[in-house]
Amino acid sequence: MFNNLRLQRQVEFIVEIDKLKQVLRQTFTTNKPRQENSAEHSWHIALMAILLAEYADSTKIDVFRVVKMLLIHDLVEIDAGDTFCYDDAARKDQHERELQAAERIFNLAPRDQAKTLVTLWKEFEACETPDSRFANAIDRLQPLLNNYNSKGKAWIKHNIKRHQVLDRNRIIGEEAPKLWHYVKELVDDAVQQGFLKK
Amino acid sequence: MFNNLRLQRQVEFIVEIDKLKQVLRQTFTTNKPRQENSAEHSWHIALMAILLAEYADSTKIDVFRVVKMLLIHDLVEIDAGDTFCYDDAARKDQHERELQAAERIFNLAPRDQAKTLVTLWKEFEACETPDSRFANAIDRLQPLLNNYNSKGKAWIKHNIKRHQVLDRNRIIGEEAPKLWHYVKELVDDAVQQGFLKK
Repeated sequence: MFNNLRLQRQVEFIVEIDKLKQVLRQTFTTNKPRQENSAEHSWHIALMAILLAEYADSTKIDVFRVVKMLLIHDLVEIDAGDTFCYDDAARKDQHERELQAAERIFNLAPRDQAKTLVTLWKEFEACETPDSRFANAIDRLQPLLNNYNSKGKAWIKHNIKRHQVLDRNRIIGEEAPKLWHYVKELVDDAVQQGFLKK
Repeated sequence: MFNNLRLQRQVEFIVEIDKLKQVLRQTFTTNKPRQENSAEHSWHIALMAILLAEYADSTKIDVFRVVKMLLIHDLVEIDAGDTFCYDDAARKDQHERELQAAERIFNLAPRDQAKTLVTLWKEFEACETPDSRFANAIDRLQPLLNNYNSKGKAWIKHNIKRHQVLDRNRIIGEEAPKLWHYVKELVDDAVQQGFLKK
């Protein structure tokens, strides 16, 4: 029916990624609590990266690249599902599952765009460059804020302890020390209020 | 408790905008149909703008500015609600309601960031610059794709006709002629398949 093949592939990709709206995460929304999905989570952190870019320890971050990474970083979950960050068993084969998903999903797009997207996703996963490390820090901060502001709903549900939260979020301290200072105050307050275990 | 006032305001803004995940739109998701919310919609169109930037008729668009606009364009709905694009009665006082919402919500952020956000939002709303016109075109294209790919679920529900869809989406034709060509094929196919009225 359609004779613009490049656009046809772009539209196929765009329609496919609509499925990310169905992938549920362990984090709860703060208002009228329900599990949030990975699409709305991705929106939230993309906007957070723009607002909080001034806290990046490296002066070399390219905020638009960070935003792009965050917009696409969870797309692999359409095939691989969301792996709970404290579920060590599921995390074992996570990388393999997500790599296969990346190959299938990104390659729906035209070849040049697919290549750019896969490269960007791999950079986010490797978490070695300033852009990807800041992106990962923001990706951790958002569930932490949502947990705190929903009175530890997911922490209580999964019996999470203070040291696990600090371990999980250590990259924030490495990439954005001022944010880390704030995070530690938040975590201590959660313990004091009784919705995060010591 | 927290002594970084600037960061405290940024976090308040970030926590407040979590509410956008509760604002439901008339568009349905294509996979396991349900009404989509404005946060996941914003994610979808931000990513679409990156993928489809090559179709912008103006050579002067700044894709990152377009993405920023799309990430924030619906935040006013936290107070003002989502106004259905074919509901002429509700659209009458829409601008006034949204302007008040913009003043409250964006001003939760630190003054300099609030100013930037309000200015960007007003530019999107005025729809006069190349960036905002392309952003608006992409904002229209996504529900159209979702409607088509959910067999016209929202069109049928609201008894929408072909000419209304074309009128509503005319800006796509003005800002991205190649996308418009595709849209017209899609709309005609929807009529032929019987899920959009003539």
